[in-house]
Amino acid sequence: SEVKKIAVIAGDGIGPEVVAEAEKVLKVTEEVFGYKFETEHALFGGIAIDEKGTPLPEETLDICKSADAVLLGAVGGPKWDTNPKELRPETGLLGIRKALGLFSNLRPAVVFDCLKDASTLKPEVLEGTDLIVVRELTGGIYFGEKFRRQSEQGEEAVDTCAYNVTEVERIARQAFEIAAKRRGKLASVDKANVLETSRLWREVVIRVAADYPNVELEHVLVDNCAMQLLRRPSSFDVIVTENMFGDILSDEAAMLTGSIGMLASASLGEGSYGLYEPVHGSAPDIAGQGLANPIATILSLALMFRLTFGYEDAAAAIEAAVAQVLDAGHRTSDIATDKSKAISTSEMGDLIVAAI
Amino acid sequence: SEVKKIAVIAGDGIGPEVVAEAEKVLKVTEEVFGYKFETEHALFGGIAIDEKGTPLPEETLDICKSADAVLLGAVGGPKWDTNPKELRPETGLLGIRKALGLFSNLRPAVVFDCLKDASTLKPEVLEGTDLIVVRELTGGIYFGEKFRRQSEQGEEAVDTCAYNVTEVERIARQAFEIAAKRRGKLASVDKANVLETSRLWREVVIRVAADYPNVELEHVLVDNCAMQLLRRPSSFDVIVTENMFGDILSDEAAMLTGSIGMLASASLGEGSYGLYEPVHGSAPDIAGQGLANPIATILSLALMFRLTFGYEDAAAAIEAAVAQVLDAGHRTSDIATDKSKAISTSEMGDLIVAAI
Ligand SMILES: CC(C)[C@H](C(=O)O)[C@@H](O)C(=O)O
Ligand SMILES: CC(C)[C@H](C(=O)O)[C@@H](O)C(=O)O
Repeated sequence: SEVKKIAVIAGDGIGPEVVAEAEKVLKVTEEVFGYKFETEHALFGGIAIDEKGTPLPEETLDICKSADAVLLGAVGGPKWDTNPKELRPETGLLGIRKALGLFSNLRPAVVFDCLKDASTLKPEVLEGTDLIVVRELTGGIYFGEKFRRQSEQGEEAVDTCAYNVTEVERIARQAFEIAAKRRGKLASVDKANVLETSRLWREVVIRVAADYPNVELEHVLVDNCAMQLLRRPSSFDVIVTENMFGDILSDEAAMLTGSIGMLASASLGEGSYGLYEPVHGSAPDIAGQGLANPIATILSLALMFRLTFGYEDAAAAIEAAVAQVLDAGHRTSDIATDKSKAISTSEMGDLIVAAI
Repeated sequence: SEVKKIAVIAGDGIGPEVVAEAEKVLKVTEEVFGYKFETEHALFGGIAIDEKGTPLPEETLDICKSADAVLLGAVGGPKWDTNPKELRPETGLLGIRKALGLFSNLRPAVVFDCLKDASTLKPEVLEGTDLIVVRELTGGIYFGEKFRRQSEQGEEAVDTCAYNVTEVERIARQAFEIAAKRRGKLASVDKANVLETSRLWREVVIRVAADYPNVELEHVLVDNCAMQLLRRPSSFDVIVTENMFGDILSDEAAMLTGSIGMLASASLGEGSYGLYEPVHGSAPDIAGQGLANPIATILSLALMFRLTFGYEDAAAAIEAAVAQVLDAGHRTSDIATDKSKAISTSEMGDLIVAAI
C-alpha cells in the first residue's frame, strides 16, 4: 500500500520517551498489517527554543506540512515559563494549530476500567461515561487582536473574541457528523445570554442541525455545562464548543474520568490531515526516568490510524492490545496501586507491541 | 440603633416565596437584637418586563440606590428566554451590577453535613471543602464592546474583553483581605499563557500581593483550575478570578459541594454596600407550590448582616438557627431523603424564625 508520511515531534519532558514507544508500535503495525510509514522527526517547543531560538522553526512547519499526519509528544516546562511570549512553547502550540489549519480538537473522555477508582467521582455517577469534546481550535479569543492601551483608570489590556459563520459552521458540521456516528446526542455549549459570538454560534448550530435530523441537539450555557459535567457526566455524548470554553470544559471532562493520563486527542483540519497527541502534559518532574506512561500516546497513534488513514484494523488492534496488557495487570507507576510492581515506559511499550 | 434600609427584590419563579421567608427572619432579628430595618420592594427581572416593559425599571434602581443593601430572590424563566436582548431578565442582572457598581461577587462553597451525600464526589475527597470564589463582576468580556460585521467568511460576531489596572487592583485587594481573614491562601486564576488581559491581571495581583505577606498566593491557569477543583477541592481557600472564568468556576465549585441549593452569595461594591442573593435560580417548575427551600436566601440575609451592616451577632444567630433546624432533621423536599416527610417553604421559614 501507499507510503504514509508521519511527522514526529517528540517535544519536551517525557515527550521523547512516550513517542519512542509509539514509534515501536508504528513499526510493528507495518509488519503485522503491511502498511508503510515514513517518519520524519522535527524540533518543536522548548527544545526548539533552545536549539533554534524559536518554538516553531520554519523547518518543522515544512516537515509537518509535507506529512499526512503529525504525532506529538508533549511540550513545555518550567525552564521556558518565564520567557517572553515569542520564546514560549505555548506560542509554538498556537502557531502550529493556526499554520496547519487545525480548527477542530477532539478529546474523547472515557473511563478505563482499571482507573475507575482514580476518579474523585462516585463510581455510580461515572458509570457509562463516554463523551467527546469537540473544541474549536483556531478562532475566538485565542487568536483575536490583543493589545495594551492607556485608559483613565491606568493601563488597560484588551483581548478580542471573534467568530464568523464559516468558522462556526465547519466545526458544527464536524460535531454533528461525529455525533451521528455515536449515540446521536450533541450538546452545543455557549454563553448566548451574554456574548454576541455565542449568539452567532447558536444561530449557525441551529441552521446546521437541519441537516442532521437524527441527532438530538441541546444548547447548554457554559456555566451550566461545568455543573452538568459533574452531575450527569454519562448523559453527554458529544459536546461542541468554542476555543476558550473548550479549553476549560475538556480539561474538566478529562479529569472527571480519572483516566486523564491515558487519554488521546486529535486536532483536525480540512480533509483527513491531523495532529495527534496525548492529553497529558510534559511532566518535567518525571522526565528521563522511564516512569512515564506511554499509553495515551500509543492511543493517539491509534486515533491517527482511524481518523487520518482509515486503518480501522490497525487502530482496533492497538486499542485491543492496550486493553489486554492492562487486563493482565501491567501498570506503569502513575496507574499502579502497588508502585513496587510498576513497569517502565519501555516495558509497557514492549508489552503492547507483543500483544499486537 | 440606626435604621437600615433594605431594597427587597422578590423577582420571578420561587423568588417571592423564598424572599418572604427571609423577611420573616428579618423581622425576628429586629425583635431579638433590637436592630431596625426598613424594607422597600421593587420590581426586577421577568415580572418587571411584564409590568413595566423593562427588566430594570428606573424606579427599581432608585430604590436600590437609596438603600443600604439589596436582597434579591431570583430572576428569569422560560417565558422570557426568547425575548430580544433588551427584554430579557439577564440584561437586567448585568444592568443592575453595573449601575450599582457591584464589582465583586462572593460565592462561598461549603458542604452542609446533611447534604454530603448529595455530591457526586467521593466523601473523602469532599471532606473539609470550604472555599470562596471571588469573581470580578463588572468588567471583562461581559461588558466589553459587542457587535456584528461582515467578513469575507460571512457575518462575524465580536466580543471585547478588557481590564484596566484599577479594576484588577480593587478585586485583588478584596480577595487578599478575605483570604487574610480565612486560611490565608489565595489562588488567582487566569489564562496568562494566552490572554493579554490575564497577563495584566497577573502583574497587578503580584503587585498587590506585596501588601499581604501572610497570604500565600498561587497562580492557576483556568483550565488547570477546572481540574484541580475536582481533584483537590479542599485544598482551596479563596479563588479570585475575572468575570467569565468566575461564572464557570463558581458554578463548578458550588456543584461539587452537593449543597448548591443552600448556598448564599454577595455582590459588593465600594464601601459596605451589597446585593445578596441565593446561588440557585428561579426554578419556575416548582414555583408557587411551597416546595422551594428558603435556606439559601435566609443565609444570604445573614451574609448581608455580616458584610454590609457588621451585625455579626445576628448573622451568627441565623446561621446557628439554620444548623439547628437541619440537625433536628427538618427538610424541604429538595433535600429530603424521605419526600413524604418534607416540610413546606413557610414551615422551614417558621422553624428557623423560632430557632432564632
Ligand atoms: C498550553 C495552552 C496554550 C493550551 C491551550 O490553552 O489551548 C493547552 O491548555 C491545551 O488545552 O492544549
Ligand atoms: C444569568 C447570567 C447573565 C449570569 C452571569 O453569567 O453572570 C449568571 O450565570 C450568574 O452567574 O449570575
